[in-house]
Amino acid sequence: MSPARTDHDARRHDVSEAVWRVLAEHGFAGLTLRAVAGAMGASTGLVTHYFGGKRELVAHALDILETRTQRRPRLKAPAPGLAALRTHVLNILPLTPEGMATNRVWVCSWDIALSDPVLFAAQTSRYERIRADLRAAIDDARRLGELVTGADADDLAATTLSFTHGLVVQALFAPETFPPARLTRLADDFLAATFGGSCPGSAPGHEPRSGQ
Amino acid sequence: MSPARTDHDARRHDVSEAVWRVLAEHGFAGLTLRAVAGAMGASTGLVTHYFGGKRELVAHALDILETRTQRRPRLKAPAPGLAALRTHVLNILPLTPEGMATNRVWVCSWDIALSDPVLFAAQTSRYERIRADLRAAIDDARRLGELVTGADADDLAATTLSFTHGLVVQALFAPETFPPARLTRLADDFLAATFGGSCPGSAPGHEPRSGQ
Repeated sequence: MSPARTDHDARRHDVSEAVWRVLAEHGFAGLTLRAVAGAMGASTGLVTHYFGGKRELVAHALDILETRTQRRPRLKAPAPGLAALRTHVLNILPLTPEGMATNRVWVCSWDIALSDPVLFAAQTSRYERIRADLRAAIDDARRLGELVTGADADDLAATTLSFTHGLVVQALFAPETFPPARLTRLADDFLAATFGGSCPGSAPGHEPRSGQ
Repeated sequence: MSPARTDHDARRHDVSEAVWRVLAEHGFAGLTLRAVAGAMGASTGLVTHYFGGKRELVAHALDILETRTQRRPRLKAPAPGLAALRTHVLNILPLTPEGMATNRVWVCSWDIALSDPVLFAAQTSRYERIRADLRAAIDDARRLGELVTGADADDLAATTLSFTHGLVVQALFAPETFPPARLTRLADDFLAATFGGSCPGSAPGHEPRSGQ
């Protein structure tokens, strides 16, 4: 690899890091060529070398978001069925600073995704994929005899993703009210109640807690 | 009221309607003076008569959103306790076109609210108020002997709002997958499972449904 190529790649990496910092602090509304230049301590001219305008900047931001989401450290499911379902949920929740930043940018992306047909379709497919993954774990749980509930598996998957994404939003707007330990407890209580574990006598390891 | 005053008010109403139409179609990212002028078939100059710039436009948009949310037709709770809790949830879900539009603009507002300290604090308070309302219904339900679960009421309120807001987001990105009848069924199943109704033998009126 030539030195020029290495420099180019290093600079590109710096630009991507600056885009991410701007996004994490100011969302898509605050993502401008000028803000990215400011975050790099560079001129706007340098940034226009990489992006023709806001549209290219947003496209690059979404690429970074997808890459960061894929590379996020994830818990491995200890077993199939309900244990795998719990792992899916915990891997989405903002339990670490990086998870907080990634979730925040996803929530911010909904404004543009709801108005742009291509981004809308991408987001719709993304949620279908996540619900399908959740459903696969629910089907395994049913086969393994872990479920008390007789409810439809697609409904259960939709409910699980709803709870998880809504909890992400609550936590983003009140991180001190929803520290990681509480998020984990809420997820465990939700899973126990929804998949049958909360019924008296049916839930080894889950006792209803007294009011706190 | 003088004719001039009436004209001014009428024009102001037209501008607000145009702001709402732009928001509902293009979100906050697409909310510009030019887009509002276009939606009115007027010149950008006319719109700048009402708003100095994007910041004033966004502030006005949030005012409209709050007003529309307050004026949304709402179901009245038929009884306190779990019935009131169910009514709260149904009043948030996008069960009508107006509810769809209002929810969509709320979700779009998260991008700017997460980055602006004043809007962030307003949104945080808003969710605290909603959780407090849900908690009041949950406390009533406990007093009325309607709850099987012994879980903490604040946790139950947070879980209920999480489920509800997450379901809003799922429905916005897949309205055909989540028609009003399915949203209502998912809400009823969630409430039954979370508040104790899904346990075999403990839930008059709720039978686990067979897989569909």
